[in-house]
Amino acid sequence: MIVVKVGGGTSLDSDAVVADIVALRAKGTELLLVHGGAQTTNAVAEALGHPPQFVTSETGHVSRRTDRRTLEIFEMVYCGQLNKMWVEKLQRAGVNAVGLSGLDGRIFEGTRKDTIRIRVEGRRMVLRDDWTGTVDRVNTTLLKLLIGAGYFPVLTPPGASTTGEAINVDGDRAAAMVAGAFTAEALVILTDTPGLLRTFPDESTLITRIAKHEADRFMSFAEGRMKKKVMGAVEAIGEGVGTVIFADGRVAAPISRALGGAGTHIA
Amino acid sequence: MIVVKVGGGTSLDSDAVVADIVALRAKGTELLLVHGGAQTTNAVAEALGHPPQFVTSETGHVSRRTDRRTLEIFEMVYCGQLNKMWVEKLQRAGVNAVGLSGLDGRIFEGTRKDTIRIRVEGRRMVLRDDWTGTVDRVNTTLLKLLIGAGYFPVLTPPGASTTGEAINVDGDRAAAMVAGAFTAEALVILTDTPGLLRTFPDESTLITRIAKHEADRFMSFAEGRMKKKVMGAVEAIGEGVGTVIFADGRVAAPISRALGGAGTHIA
Repeated sequence: MIVVKVGGGTSLDSDAVVADIVALRAKGTELLLVHGGAQTTNAVAEALGHPPQFVTSETGHVSRRTDRRTLEIFEMVYCGQLNKMWVEKLQRAGVNAVGLSGLDGRIFEGTRKDTIRIRVEGRRMVLRDDWTGTVDRVNTTLLKLLIGAGYFPVLTPPGASTTGEAINVDGDRAAAMVAGAFTAEALVILTDTPGLLRTFPDESTLITRIAKHEADRFMSFAEGRMKKKVMGAVEAIGEGVGTVIFADGRVAAPISRALGGAGTHIA
Repeated sequence: MIVVKVGGGTSLDSDAVVADIVALRAKGTELLLVHGGAQTTNAVAEALGHPPQFVTSETGHVSRRTDRRTLEIFEMVYCGQLNKMWVEKLQRAGVNAVGLSGLDGRIFEGTRKDTIRIRVEGRRMVLRDDWTGTVDRVNTTLLKLLIGAGYFPVLTPPGASTTGEAINVDGDRAAAMVAGAFTAEALVILTDTPGLLRTFPDESTLITRIAKHEADRFMSFAEGRMKKKVMGAVEAIGEGVGTVIFADGRVAAPISRALGGAGTHIA
């Protein structure tokens, strides 16, 4: 099993991703797609007069404020616009795709953080009406049922809390959990860079290999964004995933190229 | 099997529908939900600066103009906002719901009308870039797979054309086709009236029974909107559905009340 994660970035070549899925499936490779959509959500939220807000937690972590209206817009974009865009492209290419959110059949199940402690201008505040959470487990029963019957699952946040509430969960983390649950051979994360860059956005500073046992040393000099990605990769490997690859989603045959050695391989 | 169709009307009591689904399932009744969302789509399309347009065909039939952008907004509302709203409410009530559009696994498969002949101010025109179509068949394989494994399908337009394109299909018609495909005992269509009214919107003119063999005579005096609903019902019965019930979706236990005799029963 190869789990492919695509972001919502507009420079991603979705047709190339679809064509590559078709080619790989024709060779007998079992695949599963997880997609995001943060960029598009920001644009739609602006257009609907509910612009994105970001909050800083007490520990200094910046995250999207997800009130109920934001969750609704998030679902419109992730589950409506983008999930059905992927399903339609795959169906047109002859792949019998089935688009599902992590809420459906509680595929991504986790814990809701209904209150968040934040800091605004130095003052501590408790934020309520927040609909974010973390994926604690992936319920593979439904996915295995679909795959076994020849369907191609296309997954997207949100997830479900343990009481069935919709929660905004991180797409990369959800994809890593899916890959872990299937003990995937590889998790391929396609972005709008050639992989992890030592000096972002300088593409000539691409890091090609990170050995799992070197990840700790590596993280000591990595910064925010990259650190989080490497940590996620190491976690996925800890859950049994063979290799985590960060690769370019703007090129032809992006998944095959990644599996063939392109991008940053963490193993 | 009871197929329940709910519209996107804002006066529908969705919590009452969910509670009734839970109660009926507890008694062993097998159910399946199909929902619409036209009203909400109009509001979101307005907010996004792409207001709904309606066109009149050569034969005088008025329909929604579905250009590519409208299709995208349609998917945002039907598959994102409303489908996940229903799935979340059901999950919170302990029903393991799985939300799917007719595009997923090609559940609603049909023919795209890619050009539409219309009349604008007396002149004939051919409209291209249109993404509407009709449901010709319901692929029950995926639905049976899910139901057999204990999941509760929540279905919504769009459908898929025979080449896998997303097509805007009529929700009532799709629900009737689902009911036909399952040879359902009943198709319950919940609206914001007590049933079919002889003189719309006068609720005291509720028609309680229409015998299938009287439908033709009935249609001779019925007008546009009601005629279409009765025709759809007769079609569903022709496909093996026991009874088609138009009932009030604004009341407590709306499905149970309909099955118990409320609304307009066509059999």
